[in-house]
Amino acid sequence: MQDAPADPIAVLVHHLSRLPGIGGKTATRLAYFLVRDPGLSEDLAAALQGTATTVGRCTICGDFTSAEVCATCADPKREPSLVCVVERSQDLQAVERAGVYRGRYHILGGALSPLDGVGPDVLRVRELLDRLMDVEEVILATNPTVEGDATALYLARLLKPIGVKVSRIARGVSVGAELEYTDAGTIGRALEERREL
Amino acid sequence: MQDAPADPIAVLVHHLSRLPGIGGKTATRLAYFLVRDPGLSEDLAAALQGTATTVGRCTICGDFTSAEVCATCADPKREPSLVCVVERSQDLQAVERAGVYRGRYHILGGALSPLDGVGPDVLRVRELLDRLMDVEEVILATNPTVEGDATALYLARLLKPIGVKVSRIARGVSVGAELEYTDAGTIGRALEERREL
Repeated sequence: MQDAPADPIAVLVHHLSRLPGIGGKTATRLAYFLVRDPGLSEDLAAALQGTATTVGRCTICGDFTSAEVCATCADPKREPSLVCVVERSQDLQAVERAGVYRGRYHILGGALSPLDGVGPDVLRVRELLDRLMDVEEVILATNPTVEGDATALYLARLLKPIGVKVSRIARGVSVGAELEYTDAGTIGRALEERREL
Repeated sequence: MQDAPADPIAVLVHHLSRLPGIGGKTATRLAYFLVRDPGLSEDLAAALQGTATTVGRCTICGDFTSAEVCATCADPKREPSLVCVVERSQDLQAVERAGVYRGRYHILGGALSPLDGVGPDVLRVRELLDRLMDVEEVILATNPTVEGDATALYLARLLKPIGVKVSRIARGVSVGAELEYTDAGTIGRALEERREL
């Protein structure tokens, strides 16, 4: 990567292009849009300063928060004996959007991926073990990918001997999906994990 | 649009989603990337503050600049009797990248588009007329689109009676392109505007 250039617009293009999925052309387009809209530029700068200076990690679940403990962990109405383990904060939000879960969360910070150097020590596994005292069930909601499945398997083997109940979110056909367009692996899983009605 | 929410990350997502081509999902992805990289957040905030506070328009050509007059207009080595008219600053840069043009520029600020309410008074046409004193040739480099062509035609009719030479950039097949994949309109143009060798 080159050094950031001195021209203000070029500097903005340079930093925008450091964002994932934003190439040189998109960065240039966004930069000129922002230059023509100083109000949005100021709003965005303030928001970035806001997150950079105030957002840290919840000391319990590891989710992003501006406080010592996040709103979910601080909520007395959330069942403390139930912990849903997810890879990232975005996954937590996806579960929240479903609107059916009333327990707590634990953010791992990713999934096991030995080839990328991500072992159990890189993830927040130690922190999960440290908070199992009053926990009755751990729901493993890592992604249904090779890495996510491997991580769930690893955690299940680690947690079961401790005596905590361990479950994995169900795999199956998406709600509203058509079988014709569903991949074979998912249909296979849906058949294997079929439930009696 | 909803009011900006109070959570710092939600605020950042909100402002990012105001950018063109950035939907809710991309804004969320970018926001979490930025939250995990406070250094980039600070760089980007500073760059946005930089452009919002220092970047204005060159009083001669209308390009973005941090000074009263932009570097191109202030450069004594650029031929002042030759003015290349482009729609936007990005077009100026595209011409500069070609590396063959040594004259000055004039930014129109867009192309005529009556249906969108963009008439000659919205564009920097008045400013172009005001700087024609020592100009010998005006090269119309508006985009080869319906609007760009109409704008070029309008400007040609306006400028020719004044006695200035007016030219239009050539239309034809792209350098390095294959005829098989070139659209019929472009091939038609390339045949019409063929040059004797």
